[in-house]
Amino acid sequence: MKLYDYSRSPNARRVRIFLAEKAIEVPVETVDLAHGESHTPSFLSKNPLGQVPLLEFDDGTYLAESVAICRYFEEAQPSPPLFGTTARGRAEVEMWARRIELSLFAPVLVVWKHTDPSWAGRLPQVAALADMERARVTQSLAILDAALAQREFLAGDRFSIADILALCTIEFACEAANIWPDPKLEHLAGWHEAVARRPSARA
Amino acid sequence: MKLYDYSRSPNARRVRIFLAEKAIEVPVETVDLAHGESHTPSFLSKNPLGQVPLLEFDDGTYLAESVAICRYFEEAQPSPPLFGTTARGRAEVEMWARRIELSLFAPVLVVWKHTDPSWAGRLPQVAALADMERARVTQSLAILDAALAQREFLAGDRFSIADILALCTIEFACEAANIWPDPKLEHLAGWHEAVARRPSARA
Repeated sequence: MKLYDYSRSPNARRVRIFLAEKAIEVPVETVDLAHGESHTPSFLSKNPLGQVPLLEFDDGTYLAESVAICRYFEEAQPSPPLFGTTARGRAEVEMWARRIELSLFAPVLVVWKHTDPSWAGRLPQVAALADMERARVTQSLAILDAALAQREFLAGDRFSIADILALCTIEFACEAANIWPDPKLEHLAGWHEAVARRPSARA
Repeated sequence: MKLYDYSRSPNARRVRIFLAEKAIEVPVETVDLAHGESHTPSFLSKNPLGQVPLLEFDDGTYLAESVAICRYFEEAQPSPPLFGTTARGRAEVEMWARRIELSLFAPVLVVWKHTDPSWAGRLPQVAALADMERARVTQSLAILDAALAQREFLAGDRFSIADILALCTIEFACEAANIWPDPKLEHLAGWHEAVARRPSARA
């Protein structure tokens, strides 16, 4: 088994944190996205979407998509559970994971692509679109704050993959899209401080 | 228990098909998205993102996000399994569900928003962005076709939620974004014909 990884990819980081929480060690091979290594014919034959993280099994098959890789390890080694433990709990984790993915990470990516100089030659950057999506990010962060006023972690009283996705997204938003959560969102700030202090966050 | 639904929402349709496959009946209340009913203070207190589908439990709590609602019913009534049955199988379903969501549905939405007259006053429509995302749709459809050359359904030999997401997305792409799969993608065409013939597809 081998994990294709890239240190600066926010999606690859999700898997590294997840594995650290489970204390699972997997051999890693770095794919240098910055130098196009994810779009060589060799890598595209492994994952046609040219993305990391990617998990290679010993039988030569592959599994792509960060959350799918995490789910594989959840099923293979259930403890500690990071996808919920009851019907409702698993559904809550899924709900928050999707909200992070679709209503926070997706607009952060749009802001990044429409403002960062590194994207200037690759698409028509439209400041008004970045502004609209920045407003969606603000709304989503407020929804996270309201949820975290009620409980310790996003999907309940137990750390889950939803917290991992949120941590990676919020830190990517700061670094790449220059979006910083309003410090008045104090429940979000307290949660962030707590999850960033976990040893897994250094992964 | 009550499901908030809207007949023309592609995400609400996912849940209707899923419930039909499981032969689960849930009382339904229509939220008329076209007339702003998802953004009233009353509905926003149920789901701050103002989206359907939404599941209301008898204790007055709510569960949002189409796939989260499906996962709840999968856990509550596992048969027939629609999220996979083994560690690897569940991960494969997750991988394909995410590819549909992030690499097919997301760009379809961008094409729709940047070309449909109904969006003209709501964002700056940029034809070049629609063209870029249309190319991503084309790439993703080709990846689905290649996968379906190897097996009957997206995530293996069993119908799963990944097929439901793909069906709803492809039909929404035709209706809303005027994107029609190239008929040369014959494995995709054969799969589409088969899944559209299932009784659940009328949901």
